[in-house]
Amino acid sequence: MSTTIDVPESSNINKEKTILVAPARPGGWKKGTAIMDFILRLGAIAAAIAAAASMGTSDQTLPFFTQFFQFEASYDSFTTFQFFVISMAIAASYLVLSLPFSIVAIIRPHAPGPRLFLIILDTVFLTLATSSAAAAASIVYLAHNGNQDTNWLAICNQFGDFCAQTSGAVVASFITVVVLILLVVMSALAIGKH
Amino acid sequence: MSTTIDVPESSNINKEKTILVAPARPGGWKKGTAIMDFILRLGAIAAAIAAAASMGTSDQTLPFFTQFFQFEASYDSFTTFQFFVISMAIAASYLVLSLPFSIVAIIRPHAPGPRLFLIILDTVFLTLATSSAAAAASIVYLAHNGNQDTNWLAICNQFGDFCAQTSGAVVASFITVVVLILLVVMSALAIGKH
Repeated sequence: MSTTIDVPESSNINKEKTILVAPARPGGWKKGTAIMDFILRLGAIAAAIAAAASMGTSDQTLPFFTQFFQFEASYDSFTTFQFFVISMAIAASYLVLSLPFSIVAIIRPHAPGPRLFLIILDTVFLTLATSSAAAAASIVYLAHNGNQDTNWLAICNQFGDFCAQTSGAVVASFITVVVLILLVVMSALAIGKH
Repeated sequence: MSTTIDVPESSNINKEKTILVAPARPGGWKKGTAIMDFILRLGAIAAAIAAAASMGTSDQTLPFFTQFFQFEASYDSFTTFQFFVISMAIAASYLVLSLPFSIVAIIRPHAPGPRLFLIILDTVFLTLATSSAAAAASIVYLAHNGNQDTNWLAICNQFGDFCAQTSGAVVASFITVVVLILLVVMSALAIGKH
């Protein structure tokens, strides 16, 4: 009797083991991407805040002035740069608010809900960040090089500090864009492979 | 005996029915999104080709000229517009090449492979299309309104046709961007819900 009782017990243990071991592997892989997602999100927040702050504080007044006019350049002068500051601030806020969902994805790596939510909103804010970064980049390029055909002169000879600061902001915003692309691709892979 | 034989037979039929009916519904839903994906892709191709062609043919020569100089504006004058034509052409080529994968997704709505492939590349080309659209939009805005602080004059008073054509190209490119966002979101939903 004792042997017959032992046999079903051990088979039960084996079954439990296989149940516990089998889903643990893909779960671990998914948990890894979720943790990576959280870390990348922190980096994107830092880059987005740096971009918005660097552009928002760009302001240079030249030391000489005429009777009627003092030469000053700030991000306020350009509609594109205003859009840049606003949209990078919105993107940074979204990324901060998305951190709880990223944590939920770490705790429950198999639930597709939070990842789906994140991938859809990430795509939308990727587009917002890309559009503001590209628009600002084209203005910064114009400020550096000017355009002969339309007689738009390069202003970076005069406003060197202003140009350096706005260029830095554009670089930071493109880092945000690259990180957001990585986030979307990683979420897609984590959702797609079961 | 005859009744005991009948019972398992009918229960088998019921089981088969439930097996056949249950996966048919999500399959039909997924097939619908795959067909929608194909149709939206055709629309995005048309919009991207329209944007590239409209920008690429924008060229206006003013009827008056000085001794040394004839006033002419074409997309060649602006580095941003050159980037716009090239990247919209690349996006259109990608969308044409992605059609076979979209057809595979229609034939096999449950296979995650083609959809994963499409969502990752769609995200990359969404970023490319958005950056060129936004960069061109900021230059078009400048051409319309100018910028007082930097003494960049609005050129649309002189080059009216040129401005109208480039503005149209920017609108077409933003239609491409919106369709690509829809494609990414639809693919994500189709992959995520099982």
